[in-house]
Amino acid sequence: MSKPTIRTIRYDELVVGHRYGAGTIAVTAEEIKSFAARYDPQPFHLDEVAAQQSVFGGLVASGWLTAALTMRLMVTSEFQLGGGAIGLGVDSLRWPQPVRPGDELTATVEIVGRRASESKPGFGIVKIRTTTTNQRDEVVQVMVSNILVRK
Amino acid sequence: MSKPTIRTIRYDELVVGHRYGAGTIAVTAEEIKSFAARYDPQPFHLDEVAAQQSVFGGLVASGWLTAALTMRLMVTSEFQLGGGAIGLGVDSLRWPQPVRPGDELTATVEIVGRRASESKPGFGIVKIRTTTTNQRDEVVQVMVSNILVRK
Repeated sequence: MSKPTIRTIRYDELVVGHRYGAGTIAVTAEEIKSFAARYDPQPFHLDEVAAQQSVFGGLVASGWLTAALTMRLMVTSEFQLGGGAIGLGVDSLRWPQPVRPGDELTATVEIVGRRASESKPGFGIVKIRTTTTNQRDEVVQVMVSNILVRK
Repeated sequence: MSKPTIRTIRYDELVVGHRYGAGTIAVTAEEIKSFAARYDPQPFHLDEVAAQQSVFGGLVASGWLTAALTMRLMVTSEFQLGGGAIGLGVDSLRWPQPVRPGDELTATVEIVGRRASESKPGFGIVKIRTTTTNQRDEVVQVMVSNILVRK
């Protein structure tokens, strides 16, 4: 995969509307099938022939592989926080289009909110929208999530 | 992992409040680290010594590994649908407690809503709450999601 240049972002630089780019990552049939064999063993993720008979009409990645690859893109993106990206939870996660073998994914992280943590002094909570797209700029995942950030 | 007995559930059997159990799955340090190396390369998921210095005080699983293991538990659970479990999206995903090496996870799927699909005749949309717990009955993940089901 390719990587953008990385530097650590301070809490007060995390301004609503700012966007951070990521590199790209290629999706192979091998990874779709090996991920599915362990985590999501359904025919449309495991076997090309069985997948042709499914609603997808061909092999597709588990949504959880798309989510995991997006995490990989995010962790290695321009969106670099000092203490790492500690996920507090996800408000919404959608997969508008399936991911197929040969797809090349990238992601954009957009700041949608920021507030001080009430329970953890010295920490803030940043709400982000992470949009994952394929090589045709089709959106394959949209996630809104909350990240704990050291101030 | 252990598996419960499996039979396919009809759409009209998916009644609000019904719960479906799953087997168990053990989490190893090896899987935590190998998953993280590919999908979530942060020190607290990759290395015991670095993890001791983190807010977690030791090696913890990526939330995406917990989500993926929960999918495994769900796909092999009593909650068996005729055409597979096609996820339309997630309304909420929380990780109240971290998952650590040696944990043994199980999951419960509870039906929280059901309606006919407006765009796909012959299909329904079932809203479920999947709760993942460890061997001490501590909740490690709660997810509310929507599944497309053939009627």
